[in-house]
Amino acid sequence: MPDLRFINAHHSPLGAFASFTLGYPGASGGFDLERGQPPKEPVFVMLESANAAGSFDALPFCDAMSQDEAARFSTAHDDLNRIGASVSINVFPDEAIRREFGIARDSWRAGDLRFTVLTPALSAPDPDVADEAALKAAFVPAVYVEIEVDNSNHERARRVAFGYAGSDPYRAMCHMKTPELVGVGQGREVAILTDAPGAWSGIGFHPGLILGDALVENRGWALGQCGLLVAEVAPRAVTRLRYAIGFHRAGIVTSGIDASYLYTRWFDSAVSAARFALDRFDEAAADAADAEANLRASALSEEQRFMLAHATRAYLGSTQLLQRDGRPLWVVNEGEYRMINTFDLTVDHLFHELAHHPWAVRNVLDLYRDHYSYRDRTRLPGDSTEYDGGIAFTHDMGVANVFSARGHSCYERSGLSGCFSQMTHEQLTNWVLCAGAYVEQTDDEVWLRDNAGTLFDCLQSMILRDHPDAEQRDGVMHADSSRCSGGAEITTYDSLDTSLGQARANTYLAGKCWASYLALERLLTRLGRSDAAAQAALQARRCAETLVAAVQPDGTLPAVLEPGTPGFASRIIPAIEGLVYPWFCGRRDACNPDGPYGAYVKALRTHLDAVLKEGVCLFADGGWKLSASSDNSWLSKIYLAQFVARKILGMPASRTARSDRAHAAWLVDPRNAFWSWSDQIEAGYAIGSKYYPRGVTASLWLKEATD
Amino acid sequence: MPDLRFINAHHSPLGAFASFTLGYPGASGGFDLERGQPPKEPVFVMLESANAAGSFDALPFCDAMSQDEAARFSTAHDDLNRIGASVSINVFPDEAIRREFGIARDSWRAGDLRFTVLTPALSAPDPDVADEAALKAAFVPAVYVEIEVDNSNHERARRVAFGYAGSDPYRAMCHMKTPELVGVGQGREVAILTDAPGAWSGIGFHPGLILGDALVENRGWALGQCGLLVAEVAPRAVTRLRYAIGFHRAGIVTSGIDASYLYTRWFDSAVSAARFALDRFDEAAADAADAEANLRASALSEEQRFMLAHATRAYLGSTQLLQRDGRPLWVVNEGEYRMINTFDLTVDHLFHELAHHPWAVRNVLDLYRDHYSYRDRTRLPGDSTEYDGGIAFTHDMGVANVFSARGHSCYERSGLSGCFSQMTHEQLTNWVLCAGAYVEQTDDEVWLRDNAGTLFDCLQSMILRDHPDAEQRDGVMHADSSRCSGGAEITTYDSLDTSLGQARANTYLAGKCWASYLALERLLTRLGRSDAAAQAALQARRCAETLVAAVQPDGTLPAVLEPGTPGFASRIIPAIEGLVYPWFCGRRDACNPDGPYGAYVKALRTHLDAVLKEGVCLFADGGWKLSASSDNSWLSKIYLAQFVARKILGMPASRTARSDRAHAAWLVDPRNAFWSWSDQIEAGYAIGSKYYPRGVTASLWLKEATD
Repeated sequence: MPDLRFINAHHSPLGAFASFTLGYPGASGGFDLERGQPPKEPVFVMLESANAAGSFDALPFCDAMSQDEAARFSTAHDDLNRIGASVSINVFPDEAIRREFGIARDSWRAGDLRFTVLTPALSAPDPDVADEAALKAAFVPAVYVEIEVDNSNHERARRVAFGYAGSDPYRAMCHMKTPELVGVGQGREVAILTDAPGAWSGIGFHPGLILGDALVENRGWALGQCGLLVAEVAPRAVTRLRYAIGFHRAGIVTSGIDASYLYTRWFDSAVSAARFALDRFDEAAADAADAEANLRASALSEEQRFMLAHATRAYLGSTQLLQRDGRPLWVVNEGEYRMINTFDLTVDHLFHELAHHPWAVRNVLDLYRDHYSYRDRTRLPGDSTEYDGGIAFTHDMGVANVFSARGHSCYERSGLSGCFSQMTHEQLTNWVLCAGAYVEQTDDEVWLRDNAGTLFDCLQSMILRDHPDAEQRDGVMHADSSRCSGGAEITTYDSLDTSLGQARANTYLAGKCWASYLALERLLTRLGRSDAAAQAALQARRCAETLVAAVQPDGTLPAVLEPGTPGFASRIIPAIEGLVYPWFCGRRDACNPDGPYGAYVKALRTHLDAVLKEGVCLFADGGWKLSASSDNSWLSKIYLAQFVARKILGMPASRTARSDRAHAAWLVDPRNAFWSWSDQIEAGYAIGSKYYPRGVTASLWLKEATD
Repeated sequence: MPDLRFINAHHSPLGAFASFTLGYPGASGGFDLERGQPPKEPVFVMLESANAAGSFDALPFCDAMSQDEAARFSTAHDDLNRIGASVSINVFPDEAIRREFGIARDSWRAGDLRFTVLTPALSAPDPDVADEAALKAAFVPAVYVEIEVDNSNHERARRVAFGYAGSDPYRAMCHMKTPELVGVGQGREVAILTDAPGAWSGIGFHPGLILGDALVENRGWALGQCGLLVAEVAPRAVTRLRYAIGFHRAGIVTSGIDASYLYTRWFDSAVSAARFALDRFDEAAADAADAEANLRASALSEEQRFMLAHATRAYLGSTQLLQRDGRPLWVVNEGEYRMINTFDLTVDHLFHELAHHPWAVRNVLDLYRDHYSYRDRTRLPGDSTEYDGGIAFTHDMGVANVFSARGHSCYERSGLSGCFSQMTHEQLTNWVLCAGAYVEQTDDEVWLRDNAGTLFDCLQSMILRDHPDAEQRDGVMHADSSRCSGGAEITTYDSLDTSLGQARANTYLAGKCWASYLALERLLTRLGRSDAAAQAALQARRCAETLVAAVQPDGTLPAVLEPGTPGFASRIIPAIEGLVYPWFCGRRDACNPDGPYGAYVKALRTHLDAVLKEGVCLFADGGWKLSASSDNSWLSKIYLAQFVARKILGMPASRTARSDRAHAAWLVDPRNAFWSWSDQIEAGYAIGSKYYPRGVTASLWLKEATD
C-alpha cells in the first residue's frame, strides 16, 4: 500500500462545487469554491509547544507567508516585526505525521495534535419531492473539522490555531461573529466557525502578527490575508474543538441559463451555513463513521478502498446543485476543465449516482433532452453527400458556470477529426444508456412513458448512423454527423490516438452501441412498442455478429474495424466497456457467456486475456494500458473495465491486485498528488483531467460482492 | 511635456468600483471589477491588414497568449495549430502610435485605426432625492468605446477585432446576444456589446483560433479565455463602430454591513448595463466632449491638465455607490489597499466631491457619525494616567468590501507609534473639516442642525486632546488617544518619518487643528451657539500664536514642536496644508495675510519660500519633497499644497511650472506607469499607494482661476 500521507484530497459537501482541499505539502490546498483546482492557499493547523510559549508546531500545509503585504504600506515596521518575531512556526517533520484516509473522514495525527475533516454527505433525497429539512441537512454547503489535543501530560495551557490565507481576488478576510460563535473567513463566501469556549479570531499579514500580539484590543485588526481562529486547551486534559467550514455563493451564479445554488433557499452566507453545520455536528460525525464502517466492511483491498475514497471525494467536490425558476438543476463540473455535465462523464458517474442520488441522472437527462439535443444529418467518409440523421446530444452544457447555447456544447468544433471534434454518436448512446440504467434501477415508470418518443427517436437516429444504406447496416457506426463538416466524430477518449479516439467503426463505441440497442429493446418492450424493440434487437445482434466476425487469429479484436488503418492494428481494453451497461439496464442475460450473446461475450473475454500483457495493454508496473498504441491511460475507465473483467467476464481478483497497487502508486506520486484525483495518466504521470470527478466509476467495485 | 502614450489609466464609470484599465504595453490592463489593481489581461484591439488577409495589426496591449490552455486537454492539436497559424498578429511599433489623453476621452491612433474610450460620468445627482432616470444615466456601470477605421484608400473589406482574455477565476468567457446586439465577456460580470452590423463573437484559447477558422459554425465555440468581437469594415470608406462595456456585480457584495450596488435597481447583469449604455452613446459622447472642452478652456498647463485628468480617472475607478436597505451608501476605495472610505483620503477627495457630487461627502460623514465614531480617553507621553477624551472617528470603515466592526477601523492597532497606529485626532479634524466645507458649499441647513450636537462634541474632544490641563492648552495636540495603549498617534503620512508621521505637536496637524477650530467657530455661530463658537475661536487663536511663536531664526517652522527631537529639526511643506480648509469653509478672512491670522499666514509664506529649495523640500528635478527628512513624497498632497501656495499664499504659477514637469515625469516613468496614478513617490519611484484615488486634489487647481 503506498504512502497516502502527502496527497491532496477533496473534502466537500454535496452539490456546493466546493472543497476544503488538503494534504499536499506547502501552500497547496485551501478553500476551493468554484475553482476546479487546488487554491494554493496556506492552511494553518498549529499547536503551541508544551514547553515554549509562542512556538507552534504546524501540519505541513503552510509556508512562510510573504512579508510583502506589510511592505506595500510602508517599509518601516519595527514594531510589527518585533511582534511577528515573537512567534515561531515549525512544520512537523514528515516522520511525525500519521494520516488515516477514508471516504468521509480524513485525519492527521502529529505530536499531541489530531486534525480530522469530516465530509459525511454522500447521498441525498430527491430535491423535487423531499421535505425541506432533509434537503437542508443533505445539502448544507459545509464540512466539519475536529481538532483534538492531548495535553494530558502537560502542565501548561496551550494555544491551538486553525485558519488560512485566502486568495479570493475580490473580498478581504473577515471577522465573523454570532452571539455564540466566532469565525473567520473571506467575504461572504468562506467561513470557519467554532463554538470552542474562549476562541477568538485574528487577521494579519501572517500568523505571527496575530499570535504574537499580547494586546487583546488588536484582535479586531483586519488587514492582511491571513485569518486564524485561536483557542486554548487546558492542561492535564484531552480537549476536542469543533469547527464548521461554510461555503456560499449568493444570487444568480450562471449565465446562458440563469441559476442559483439550491442551498440559497436556507442559507444567505457562509456563516449561516457553517452555523447550521455546527448545530448538527454529532449527526454529521455519526454519518461519517457509518460511511467508513461500510467501506471497511466491503470486500475491497486497501488499495481499492483508497482509490474509491479518493475518487469519490473528487466527484463530490465537482457536484453543484443549482435551481432555475425554483426547480433543481444538477451539475457535475468536469474537474479542472469545468465543463458542465459533460455527457461522456455523466455515463461514468451513472453507477455512483444511481446508488446515492438517482434523481440526478434523471435531472441531467431531462436537460439534455430539452435544451442540449439537436437534429443533424450524416455523411460517409470522403463523401459530401448528406443523409438522414436524427436526434443527438451535445458533448456538454457549457463551461465554468456559463451554459452554452441551446443545442450546442462549448467543446465541439466542426472540421476536425481529433480532440474538440463532434462526439455525436457517443453522446447519443450515453443518453440511451443513462436512461436504461435509470429506469431499471428506479422503476420510474412515469419518466419512461414521458420519454417514449425520445427513446424511439434515439433508436432511429442510431440506426441511421449505422449506415445510410439499410442493406449495409451491421450494428456499428459508419456515418459521421454533418456537424463534422467533413471532419470525423471522436469518442470520449479525445486525447488518445485513433485506436480509441475515432468513433467510426470503433470497437469501443460498437460495444456501447450494442449495449444501447439492448437497453432500447428492453425499454421499448416495457413501453409496448414491440416493432421498435425488434428493430433494436436486430441491430444488437448485427453489432455482436460484426464484432465476433472481426476477431483476429490471435483472438483479439482490432481497435477500429477499418482494415489497413493504424486503429485496426491497435488493441484496446475498452472493447469490453460496453458490457457494463446491460448489467445495469436489466439485460444481464446478454452478459452471460452461455446466453444469447455468448459468442460476443466469450470473444471479449478472450480478447481481454490476450491484450492484458506487457507490451500490449499492461505497463511494466502492472498498471492497465487502455490502448496498446498510446501511453495515455485513464484511471476512471480502468476502474470500470476492472469491474467488467472481474464481475462479468469472471477474471479472478488476484489478477488485478498488482495493477491496483500500480494505480494507487500513480495517484500518490509526488508529481501527481497535488492534483487530488486525476484521470489521464501517461506512463505514471498525470497529464490531464486533473482534480477530476470521473474516478467515481470505482463505486462499481462495491457491486461486485453484492450484486 | 512627457510622453503619455504608454501609461495605464483608469477608464471608469462613476460608482461601480470598475475600470477598463489600459495604456501600459503588454498584457497590463483589462477589466478591473473590484480588484484595485490592473488585471494584467491581454486586450486585443486589432485591424486586419489592407494587403494581407489574416494579418492583423494590434495596439500594444496584448502579448502572445500561452498555448497551455489547449495542451491541458490534449497534446495533439494539428488542426487547431493550422487554424491558429493562419493568423498573424503584429503589434504596432511605438513610433506608429499617437495618443490623445483627456479626462473623459482617451484615444489611440495607429495606421488606419483609431480606438477611443469615453468615460463621461464625472458628476451625479443626489441619489437620495434625484429621479430614477437621471440616476440611471449617471450610474450606469459602463464605459464607451469607438473604433474608427479609415479604409478610404483601400479596396478590400477588413476585419476589426476587439476583445480580451478574462482573468476572473470563477466564470468562463461567454457569448452574449440580445435581439439586436452581440457581445462577449466573462460570466455575468463583464460584457462588451456592440451594435456593429454583422459583428459576431468568438471565444478561443487565443485570437488565432477565432479569426483563423473559416467555418461559421465554429463561432459558437466557448472554450478558452480569449473572447473577441469581430466586425468587418467596408472598402473605400471611413467606418465607426460602437461598443459599450458593462460591469456588474449582483446581490449583497459586502459583509459587516450588507450592501449591494445601487445600479442593481436597474441592471441585472453586465449585458443589461451595456445595452442601456449603447442606447445613450450619443449623449455620452457629447458629455465627454463637454468635459474635454471645459478642461481645455481652463488656465492649466499641459502637465497640469494631464495630472488632473489622470488622477480624476483613478478616483472614479475607486468609487462605489452601494445601497443598504435601499438607502445610498457611498464608498471610495483606497486604491491598491482597498480600504473603505479612508477618512484621511475623504478629506482630500472633498474638493472634487463638493464640485461634482457633494451629497457623497454628507453620506460619508453620516456613516462615520453613526457607525464609525467612538469615545476614548487620552494620555500624555510617558504617563499612563488617563484623562477625559471625547468623540473620535476611525481611520476607515473596513477593507475590500468587508466593513469593520462598529467603532473600529481595519487599519488601526494599539501599542504602536508608527504605521498602523491610531489616527484619532487627525480623523477628528477630518470630520469637522468635511462638515465645514460641506455646509459652506451646499448651505444644507437641515444637515447642519441635525449635526449640531456632534459638532459641539467634536469641539470639546479637540480641546481635551490639546491638553488635559486647561492651563496648558495652546491649540496644538498634546494628548494621545488611550486607544494607543501607550503608543503614539500618527497622521495620514504614516509611511514617512516622524516629521510628518507623528501627530502630537505636529505642525501639519496643528494647521488642520487651527482650520478645524475656524470651521467650528463658523458652524457653531450659524447654529447660534456663541459660547462654543468663542471657545473655538480662542483655540484657533492659541494655535496660530503657538505656531507663529515657533518660527525659527531662518523663518521656517519645525516639523514637530518638540525641541530636541528629529522632527523638530525637520521641515515640511504640509505645514501650509491647513490653509486650504478655511478657504472652503467660509473663512477666507483667516487666509488673508492682512487679516486676523495674518501673522500665521505670513509665517507660512515665509516658511514655504525658505523650504522650497534643493536639499530641503525640493528634489533635484524640481519636484516637491514634502519633508526635508524623507524622500517619500506624495503627489496628492503636493497638488493640494500647490493650490495653497499659489492661490492663498500668492506664489506665482511660474514658480511651480518646473515642479509640474517633474511630477508628470514621475507618473509616466516606465517603472511607475503600469500602476495608473500613484501617490507615494520616493525620489521618482512609486513605492506605495498605487492605483490610487487621492490625486483628485488636483481638481483644486480649477478653482484657482475662478474662485
